[in-house]
Amino acid sequence: MDYSQEVRKKLEEKNVSVLDKVKIEKGLKSYEGILMPNTEMSEPDCITVKLENGYNVGIENTDGLEVEKLEKREKETKIPEIEQDESKPPISIISTGGTISSKVEYETGAVEPALNAEEIIAKTPEITEHAYIRNYEQVTQIASEDMYSEAWKEIAKQVKKELNSGSRGVVITHGTDTMHYTSAALSFMLTDLTKPVVLTGAQRSIDRGSTDASMNLNCAAIAAAQSNIGEVGVVMHATINDDYCYYIRGTRARKMHTSRRDTFRPINDKPIAEVKPNGEIKKLQEHREYQETETKAEPVFQEKTALVKIHPESDPEVLQHYEKKDYQGYVIEGTGLGHVPTQTEKSWIPKIKEITEKGKPVIGTSQCTYGRVDPNVYKNLRKLYHEAGATPAEDMTTETAYVKLGWLLEKYKDTEKIKEKFKENLKGEINERSKPETFLY
Amino acid sequence: MDYSQEVRKKLEEKNVSVLDKVKIEKGLKSYEGILMPNTEMSEPDCITVKLENGYNVGIENTDGLEVEKLEKREKETKIPEIEQDESKPPISIISTGGTISSKVEYETGAVEPALNAEEIIAKTPEITEHAYIRNYEQVTQIASEDMYSEAWKEIAKQVKKELNSGSRGVVITHGTDTMHYTSAALSFMLTDLTKPVVLTGAQRSIDRGSTDASMNLNCAAIAAAQSNIGEVGVVMHATINDDYCYYIRGTRARKMHTSRRDTFRPINDKPIAEVKPNGEIKKLQEHREYQETETKAEPVFQEKTALVKIHPESDPEVLQHYEKKDYQGYVIEGTGLGHVPTQTEKSWIPKIKEITEKGKPVIGTSQCTYGRVDPNVYKNLRKLYHEAGATPAEDMTTETAYVKLGWLLEKYKDTEKIKEKFKENLKGEINERSKPETFLY
Repeated sequence: MDYSQEVRKKLEEKNVSVLDKVKIEKGLKSYEGILMPNTEMSEPDCITVKLENGYNVGIENTDGLEVEKLEKREKETKIPEIEQDESKPPISIISTGGTISSKVEYETGAVEPALNAEEIIAKTPEITEHAYIRNYEQVTQIASEDMYSEAWKEIAKQVKKELNSGSRGVVITHGTDTMHYTSAALSFMLTDLTKPVVLTGAQRSIDRGSTDASMNLNCAAIAAAQSNIGEVGVVMHATINDDYCYYIRGTRARKMHTSRRDTFRPINDKPIAEVKPNGEIKKLQEHREYQETETKAEPVFQEKTALVKIHPESDPEVLQHYEKKDYQGYVIEGTGLGHVPTQTEKSWIPKIKEITEKGKPVIGTSQCTYGRVDPNVYKNLRKLYHEAGATPAEDMTTETAYVKLGWLLEKYKDTEKIKEKFKENLKGEINERSKPETFLY
Repeated sequence: MDYSQEVRKKLEEKNVSVLDKVKIEKGLKSYEGILMPNTEMSEPDCITVKLENGYNVGIENTDGLEVEKLEKREKETKIPEIEQDESKPPISIISTGGTISSKVEYETGAVEPALNAEEIIAKTPEITEHAYIRNYEQVTQIASEDMYSEAWKEIAKQVKKELNSGSRGVVITHGTDTMHYTSAALSFMLTDLTKPVVLTGAQRSIDRGSTDASMNLNCAAIAAAQSNIGEVGVVMHATINDDYCYYIRGTRARKMHTSRRDTFRPINDKPIAEVKPNGEIKKLQEHREYQETETKAEPVFQEKTALVKIHPESDPEVLQHYEKKDYQGYVIEGTGLGHVPTQTEKSWIPKIKEITEKGKPVIGTSQCTYGRVDPNVYKNLRKLYHEAGATPAEDMTTETAYVKLGWLLEKYKDTEKIKEKFKENLKGEINERSKPETFLY
């Protein structure tokens, strides 16, 4: 789709073309940046400008709008061909979409491979010092808010294929919003993984000076090619500077800030390692070691898994909605140590009991984010976890508990087995002892 | 209720009475602590022991259970009568329930006033150096997971009464789980507040050596009696040591850890002040100043306010459930910058549009916890906040957005007015500029 006639007229008057640097004023507001093309997703009379900080802003309605051309579009530079060093450890890159691969999309509006191996190498040539990218596969092209379980399965299958055909590690480029859900899903689906599988992304797209994509890609490639870690992890900026990344365990990562580059933090856990752009990897805690074994995948997920958040005045009737839709399991994000309203009219206990008595698992997590659900401290907790038959998620994040339950539901079908496996530490998602130093890490 | 005959027999054999210090062994596990009485909430054959760390543990089933008496119950000491100094600034204490007032409850099993002014002063005599407790009122006696909006209204009315009848500040003792929901509710309900209204609580009950209740109560009393702050705040431990507390703005506090004493943290904001047990108050940022004005209250809340959390595979059908129940407004806790699934089969956009077109507000928040919902960055966000008519919650927490919406819905009834007021910074819940130093504060 193109801009509306009205917008095009405004632009032509000032001899402005798409991808020129422009200044747009409307009322008291003023925006400077690159004029983006119109895409099928935005209104024809909404002008999109990519600001210096890498974000796009949409300016609706041309009334009273002033356009000024600041600079002609930079000439398209051909991607320099950089020779790869095939003696470096071989890795694969799997692309799934998200800001990290948003460059081409903004320019063409098309849903096509946005970055390819050549472009990644051109933007981040230092990768060739650490890794040989032997394959690049695009599995999906979706923004991470749209991520869904079929895509998780596809990614898991592709990871298995890459690792069993010659790559010693895999980098997955992914949108940041739900990267931690995907990293948890891959942690469980890749059942016996002994190689590094690293998710990375960007908070600013790669075509901006302020992008975090290059360092993240480079550190992710280093982790995949050089680390002796045999686990799924998220490799993203550890600080707001371009100094180093963390390798955060896939079941422990959480996006904690809407826009900062150091948004991913480990919950109730330390990062597994620091990864520096120069190739240094500093181990911060115990992990599964790299081994040359075959990678297996069990890519299954029960889509009818509910996640419900408790709050004052929350009404347990919503459980009936899910019951009618034949949901198979529930995660209840409770307050504090894993509480639900218990002594009021809107008590959740009877409804949860009804569900567990039907043989469906109900998991209790905490909306505190940090800490552990403890079924033994207060009598109201005993009501939930003993009398009503709910299962405490221990020190798991709500996101990981949701993904783990969905995976177990489809893998085992049998409630007792599901509950037993849920309580078992499968992929570092449960620590028997709490680690006080990890609060707000 | 008393323990079952079986349990009582076991105890009598070893000459153990309730409140004795005991050691109980079962299988490989061993527990040392105070034997608690059975209450109406727990099973007659479940023995409750209060551990040294202040937590209760319940041991079910007497099979193979060994009891040993370690120490006789400490003799009841009469509360020493401590004279208050009526020349100190007058404050009121409003009690609502929670761990901080759980002492008497554990001993009697009764739902009665658990702490009174004399007991507070006896446990924390240093309060008398800073404040004169001129009134003590118990408004409710509920665990905070059971907190509900009628109780918020009662607390707000009582605060108004206390402040307009001679107290220069109010301390509210409250369970910790939902303290931040209540502090947000009071922030909005006390519309023109110019005096300190301080919520405090405990992660360990006051009858334990490790309790945080005394320091929290003392600092809360200091803040109410001595500070020049005219806002609702949460005053709780700032660190794991008994060194000082933070005064966190009521709309900015969040319980971030299930069990740590420094669990309350300010989100996207600095604490207003540090409060030391010796009476020192150090200002950390701007706040509304103390003034001698009349306190007003608008204690209203729309109970039919929904809060829904987005996740991969989340199904917008749940909105229909709430629509059928005639809910009046929605908070959608999205991913990242405030996203919902948009381009998939389970897109939330059409259903949200349907609701906003009926004239009901839909608010978007972020499950990242920190940062700001930004409707202008990505095209999918523009779909939600422009096309579907949702309202971004800016840098408000999800909890505060929920409480604010419920309050506005009942106060104004008119959607345009509600949306306008929602976007307005009423009680420090919206910062126009982000404060980078507040991440993980």
